[in-house]
Amino acid sequence: MTRTDGRAENELREITIERGWSTQAEGSALISFGNTKVLCTATFTNGVPRWLKGQGKGWVTAEYSMLPRSTNSRMDRESVKGKIGGRTHEISRLIGRSLRAVIDTKALGENTIVIDCDVLQADGGTRTAAITGAYVALADAIEWARDQKFIGQKAQPLTDSVAAVSVGIIDGVPMLDLAYVEDVRAETDMNVVVTGRGAFVEVQGTAEGAPFDRAELDKLLDLALGGGVTLTEIQKVALGS
Amino acid sequence: MTRTDGRAENELREITIERGWSTQAEGSALISFGNTKVLCTATFTNGVPRWLKGQGKGWVTAEYSMLPRSTNSRMDRESVKGKIGGRTHEISRLIGRSLRAVIDTKALGENTIVIDCDVLQADGGTRTAAITGAYVALADAIEWARDQKFIGQKAQPLTDSVAAVSVGIIDGVPMLDLAYVEDVRAETDMNVVVTGRGAFVEVQGTAEGAPFDRAELDKLLDLALGGGVTLTEIQKVALGS
Amino acid sequence: MTRTDGRAENELREITIERGWSTQAEGSALISFGNTKVLCTATFTNGVPRWLKGQGKGWVTAEYSMLPRSTNSRMDRESVKGKIGGRTHEISRLIGRSLRAVIDTKALGENTIVIDCDVLQADGGTRTAAITGAYVALADAIEWARDQKFIGQKAQPLTDSVAAVSVGIIDGVPMLDLAYVEDVRAETDMNVVVTGRGAFVEVQGTAEGAPFDRAELDKLLDLALGGGVTLTEIQKVALGS
Amino acid sequence: MTRTDGRAENELREITIERGWSTQAEGSALISFGNTKVLCTATFTNGVPRWLKGQGKGWVTAEYSMLPRSTNSRMDRESVKGKIGGRTHEISRLIGRSLRAVIDTKALGENTIVIDCDVLQADGGTRTAAITGAYVALADAIEWARDQKFIGQKAQPLTDSVAAVSVGIIDGVPMLDLAYVEDVRAETDMNVVVTGRGAFVEVQGTAEGAPFDRAELDKLLDLALGGGVTLTEIQKVALGS
Amino acid sequence: MTRTDGRAENELREITIERGWSTQAEGSALISFGNTKVLCTATFTNGVPRWLKGQGKGWVTAEYSMLPRSTNSRMDRESVKGKIGGRTHEISRLIGRSLRAVIDTKALGENTIVIDCDVLQADGGTRTAAITGAYVALADAIEWARDQKFIGQKAQPLTDSVAAVSVGIIDGVPMLDLAYVEDVRAETDMNVVVTGRGAFVEVQGTAEGAPFDRAELDKLLDLALGGGVTLTEIQKVALGS
Amino acid sequence: MTRTDGRAENELREITIERGWSTQAEGSALISFGNTKVLCTATFTNGVPRWLKGQGKGWVTAEYSMLPRSTNSRMDRESVKGKIGGRTHEISRLIGRSLRAVIDTKALGENTIVIDCDVLQADGGTRTAAITGAYVALADAIEWARDQKFIGQKAQPLTDSVAAVSVGIIDGVPMLDLAYVEDVRAETDMNVVVTGRGAFVEVQGTAEGAPFDRAELDKLLDLALGGGVTLTEIQKVALGS
Repeated sequence: MTRTDGRAENELREITIERGWSTQAEGSALISFGNTKVLCTATFTNGVPRWLKGQGKGWVTAEYSMLPRSTNSRMDRESVKGKIGGRTHEISRLIGRSLRAVIDTKALGENTIVIDCDVLQADGGTRTAAITGAYVALADAIEWARDQKFIGQKAQPLTDSVAAVSVGIIDGVPMLDLAYVEDVRAETDMNVVVTGRGAFVEVQGTAEGAPFDRAELDKLLDLALGGGVTLTEIQKVALGS
Repeated sequence: MTRTDGRAENELREITIERGWSTQAEGSALISFGNTKVLCTATFTNGVPRWLKGQGKGWVTAEYSMLPRSTNSRMDRESVKGKIGGRTHEISRLIGRSLRAVIDTKALGENTIVIDCDVLQADGGTRTAAITGAYVALADAIEWARDQKFIGQKAQPLTDSVAAVSVGIIDGVPMLDLAYVEDVRAETDMNVVVTGRGAFVEVQGTAEGAPFDRAELDKLLDLALGGGVTLTEIQKVALGS
Repeated sequence: MTRTDGRAENELREITIERGWSTQAEGSALISFGNTKVLCTATFTNGVPRWLKGQGKGWVTAEYSMLPRSTNSRMDRESVKGKIGGRTHEISRLIGRSLRAVIDTKALGENTIVIDCDVLQADGGTRTAAITGAYVALADAIEWARDQKFIGQKAQPLTDSVAAVSVGIIDGVPMLDLAYVEDVRAETDMNVVVTGRGAFVEVQGTAEGAPFDRAELDKLLDLALGGGVTLTEIQKVALGS
Repeated sequence: MTRTDGRAENELREITIERGWSTQAEGSALISFGNTKVLCTATFTNGVPRWLKGQGKGWVTAEYSMLPRSTNSRMDRESVKGKIGGRTHEISRLIGRSLRAVIDTKALGENTIVIDCDVLQADGGTRTAAITGAYVALADAIEWARDQKFIGQKAQPLTDSVAAVSVGIIDGVPMLDLAYVEDVRAETDMNVVVTGRGAFVEVQGTAEGAPFDRAELDKLLDLALGGGVTLTEIQKVALGS
Repeated sequence: MTRTDGRAENELREITIERGWSTQAEGSALISFGNTKVLCTATFTNGVPRWLKGQGKGWVTAEYSMLPRSTNSRMDRESVKGKIGGRTHEISRLIGRSLRAVIDTKALGENTIVIDCDVLQADGGTRTAAITGAYVALADAIEWARDQKFIGQKAQPLTDSVAAVSVGIIDGVPMLDLAYVEDVRAETDMNVVVTGRGAFVEVQGTAEGAPFDRAELDKLLDLALGGGVTLTEIQKVALGS
Repeated sequence: MTRTDGRAENELREITIERGWSTQAEGSALISFGNTKVLCTATFTNGVPRWLKGQGKGWVTAEYSMLPRSTNSRMDRESVKGKIGGRTHEISRLIGRSLRAVIDTKALGENTIVIDCDVLQADGGTRTAAITGAYVALADAIEWARDQKFIGQKAQPLTDSVAAVSVGIIDGVPMLDLAYVEDVRAETDMNVVVTGRGAFVEVQGTAEGAPFDRAELDKLLDLALGGGVTLTEIQKVALGS
């Protein structure tokens, strides 16, 4: 069996990161996983939400959204429908948790960073691309805040880097970084969020078709950890570190 | 280290299932995982949503909600807020997917079953209790439909049973079926949905504190599979099968 | 003419009150009027809504809701519809007014009690069951607050007890405490809220069919006052007073 | 004790009805109860809501609303708040029920009449003014439909007339048709809807202060029936019948 | 070509202004442009919105709405739909901007005036009638505030008067103040807001059919300026100035 | 007086159009007016909205939105707020009307084209950039539909091209194509939509400060027509026509 685009089973799509795409945001990255393109911007503001005030800690949160025609057929805007769908909520929460896993909120001080991940074009793996790009925007916003002296020169709010990738089983074969045409055929679909040091932040596996067994789960985790190493490397290059 | 309620690390709380609690619904179960109590009702109706018509397939979906004072401090009603929160959406979708994993939609025919899981009292593990109880309500609704001849006498829409349990790491120790006081202290929190035959339907692990490594993940999966066996047994007893 | 369940015209259904059903709320009662079951919880909090601050007075309010499958056919959730229907609003307001009629807000001090009445199963008379059960939850929450010293040891915020019952005319015959099958056939439907001392708090009569005359109205009021006496007695027993 | 405006206890305010105020609606009336002014319009359309189709019956419904500055201090618009309040819902439903009590839906055929009652200026008794004016608009819309041959020449959908008035107890004295300054002081407030023949359609009494006893209730009903006779007469004059 | 109602091309419909229509509002006017009737009320309150506090400036804003049966066929209420439509938003904003163009916010001090323009009957030109009537209500609210000493005796928050009128091209002929039957046939439709001194505040022209050229635009502006002179005169008469 | 970026008063910013930016949409363009960047996509679908069915005519509509961090400080998402603001509604409607002004709906047949204009970065003039880019996406979607034979080979739904530009008066000087820093200082702000042949589709002028006179209006219209000629030329180049 060959993949539509000829990739090996353990091969990522072409990943590009345009760091600093936005002239407005404190940090930003336009990330591509093949044809999937996500614009990630980071907004840094002094102060924290009311429920967190006075604890000397910062806050990082994220919002995910898709442009109506990012997909093959047009979706109605959630602003027009007047409510946010379950999938959008779920992914926004996932991105936020993933970023907070590498944040030392004490070191951030009473400051808030909001990450917006807007999918300009969708071809599978938008949430994993969003997390991977969001980290770059986040790192730059923290750098900006240090330059502006909103956080101390020696403070290091980032405890590690974080990236994400999808894996899945298609016709019984475990594969890395599914494109849309692969994703719809997958029996099992899993999103894995890993740190630069290779630990897990999130593991979300779902049987879309037949339930999966322990051996299959193990193979998927191997693929994901491998993909994470490469994504971490690409993030480092983008950040020039 | 001992657990607040003296349980062993691989021990479930007391599980009870009051099958047929409702005199109104086609299937129902009031399930308790210790102090967590969830009322699950199954509504069977002929016909399917518009997007599924004419394909000879049925549909199973679920809605989860918490009573405002099911928790220790009162939460505002989502009906009053005018919108459903991300967590509620996420859990409703999880329950629906879990049940559909053991449904043969062809065998169900063009019929819809809606499962309502309303948390009357919450003490950790509400989503896993909901899935476990929902299966019982679902099974009874299918039995009812067979009696009413809405589905064929030989049709078997259920391909397996399904149950769910939480696991987590507290002070470095992996544990089964976390109560609320344990859940808030857990570094890693995982919900695992398994079939009666022991395969995975969903694996959702989140690092609330430090990221977790492969070895920890393996131990959590072991605990969850063990808990699944017991829950499956309890479901069988409740259903008299 | 005989009633479906063989009751006399001036006879209530079986009434049961499970006081302290909830381990979370400051006061609670699971009340049944026959097959109608309503879970009433009382939440006590220090402080009052902004518009009441600084007046030395407390506040009591209520919210009523039905589980989607509490009824014979499933209703959509109001949280899903994104708005609360007129009937729900009307009943929530009625319960709140009824309870406030027996509250001395000065004696309550600047504290708020929210009563949640969630209908777990509906078979007619849900609003009157809710009021009758809510009083028990309210009384217990006040007792709790006295124990916690949130209100003075001698303060008596409750000036009386309160209960409610439905009456109606079916085929020209006035009857007490209508079950659902009776309710849908009633020409006139009336809900009456009375205090333990036998005075009226609310009288809400509606001609569903032919308008009713003064003589019929008088008979309905007689039945309601009689039912009120019995309900008051049952509340006293439940509260052990 | 004298009333602010010098009226006797059983005296209505000045009532005027400007029939046919609107050049757009099928029926309309601008009704005044003293300074309370309500514009009532009736919209007649062929067809009925989906749930009523094919039964050969018509439908009458009503919507009530207040202009933001109809009252002494400005209220936010419900369209701006994005939801309709409980009081508005309650009154809209009351008006609709009151009108349907004098409608023979079979004689109306499969047609719908929507009555809009918009309070242009409020000084107490807006709901009772609305019902009284709505009947005039309704009668004219039916006349219009007969002229247009949307209903048969001999069909008589109106079985009676309907009007409404408020009564209340102030400083222990029962009084008819409360103005706003009286309404806020009333211990008991009751709205009574009566037909032209003097039967009750709705009786809604509420103890705002102390609960009321049977004797007080009787006096309020006497006053309301008296007011109903006068309002019926004024409606007849307005309709030239 | 003659106009339906026999007017000359540069002739306004009959304009009437009932100043002080409301006994509740600080300023009010019921304005008619032929059959178009708009009730304008002005609410004066001390203080300004939060974003304007402490700058020594006042705020004037407006809300526009149509009664559901102000038009020939009934429209659903925006409160029922749960959201405000684009056209309503657009017109509310236009009225607010138009009034602020003649307000010296420093002279108004930290006070807010909200103008409500409710269309009781619609026959074309509701937004221009609303602006013209709103000015009268605004002027009276300012006078009231001066009497109440909420603003200084010599302060003059009004720098000019403001009025508005529609113009359009029908069958190639430019015309002033379109009635509804004209409006629907117009190829170009323009709303022009002018001050008492004859300067422009807003010019909003739209090609409904064929695009319009510079010469047509010039003729429309001439007509509008002429209409503005007359409306200014009528406002002066209404205000007795 | 010199402009911040050194442009002449009648000079546009650098305009670039990346035609076919999206691999998903039937037509698309990423347009820049200096730092303002708008992604325009056109979605072609068979069929028309219900109210237009059976008339042999097509429909073109548009939706405008800004990414939350397209601007200098982050704005809340309209999907999160649960409603669309007045400004968004206004601009969406303007874009739709502008495009329909150059569409022959008969020639389009019963097909719908939805144009989405999402502002990725904002620096003034987002609505005029959106209209100018939307025309390119629209033209390509029509070409696509002709290739797919959804419209006839000889049908020409486009009757002209359309573009838009802002003009304004700053310190008394009329200027073309305002950047954000200019826009906030402008006394008068005008958006002008013109066809390729130089006729007006929309003229929307607003006095933000002092009202403007006829002579100023004339100069602004001259500038806008000049800018329109250049934009039309750039559109032609982008479309290779």
